[in-house]
Amino acid sequence: MPPETTPNRSRRSESSRRAILDATYGLVLEKGYAKLTIEAIAARAGVGKQTIYRWWPSKGAVMFDSFLDVADDRSGEDVALPDTGDIAADLKAVLRATVDEYNDAAYSARLRALNAELLTDPKLSAELFERMLAPGLAAYLTRLEAARSAGEIAADADLETAIEVLLSPIHYRWQLGTGPLTHAFTDSIVDLVLTGLRPPRPRD
Amino acid sequence: MPPETTPNRSRRSESSRRAILDATYGLVLEKGYAKLTIEAIAARAGVGKQTIYRWWPSKGAVMFDSFLDVADDRSGEDVALPDTGDIAADLKAVLRATVDEYNDAAYSARLRALNAELLTDPKLSAELFERMLAPGLAAYLTRLEAARSAGEIAADADLETAIEVLLSPIHYRWQLGTGPLTHAFTDSIVDLVLTGLRPPRPRD
Repeated sequence: MPPETTPNRSRRSESSRRAILDATYGLVLEKGYAKLTIEAIAARAGVGKQTIYRWWPSKGAVMFDSFLDVADDRSGEDVALPDTGDIAADLKAVLRATVDEYNDAAYSARLRALNAELLTDPKLSAELFERMLAPGLAAYLTRLEAARSAGEIAADADLETAIEVLLSPIHYRWQLGTGPLTHAFTDSIVDLVLTGLRPPRPRD
Repeated sequence: MPPETTPNRSRRSESSRRAILDATYGLVLEKGYAKLTIEAIAARAGVGKQTIYRWWPSKGAVMFDSFLDVADDRSGEDVALPDTGDIAADLKAVLRATVDEYNDAAYSARLRALNAELLTDPKLSAELFERMLAPGLAAYLTRLEAARSAGEIAADADLETAIEVLLSPIHYRWQLGTGPLTHAFTDSIVDLVLTGLRPPRPRD
């Protein structure tokens, strides 16, 4: 057997990595995270368990990367919020799209698995914040700063808090089942928050 | 050996139940939920595994009841929100106390375990909503309705949404690590939401 060349080896590594992430993704959707095992991932991906353990320390870490993998694929589309010059319309459009995503069974199943893992693993949680959450929050901040410059939002508004106040009710309702995740719900959040952020009228 | 009488048996059942819940509580704090086992609970509580399985179908169910047990003990104190006639001051006081609780390591550890379990078990999630969450949300609604009657809040305000908008940022920041859980953060949420809920001025 000829000695393996580096390009071949790295191509094969990449195809194994891809197969492992895809297998993990499929298995979480079909069986749920609680029943996910490294054995099942290895069997479906057609690799040995050692190949998985060489790259990931736990099933949580593989699942996390399979989730991030999808997020990274989409990072081109998702970085900036729309800016039509109407902050209410733009936020409503983005939050409607967000609840549509949460209402998708496949997305929701993976997000449940991810969140359950994060709750028991603070290191993964910090990595999630850096890789997934922080870029999203930064995009909201950019859009709200533009609205503030345009006079749609008060000059002294606490924008960091406002962003979490906009986004967290969706996560909360999805996770705790406090009510239906509808466009009416997200529109109502946007109306409430933007009224709270409105600049004072001239006579103030 | 004389036949056992019913009162004795039920006293013994109650003391086993108590020992199991306390053992579960302690073990979650010490080792985390992921490492909790029915064997360890049985050993610490001084009961057989069968005694646990007779009452609970899974470790998640025991953990859930050990959490609810504490919540039930406190239900007397917690049902109503303070009403000093100043809705901003009352909400700030309650949300400050809420973040103090989330910042308590023991409380936070149990809440992580509970939330991880809820994410993978929709039936437990529905029970949590009924037993723990719904009474709390109802207490907020009562207080906000009083503020609306007093003219502190607009007559047409969407109070159900407002309550989730008030509470969810704390849960979100605690779970996802988006920033520090401080009194300044909760005060800022209250200010933003109450500005959004304010009745229109007469000239509107």
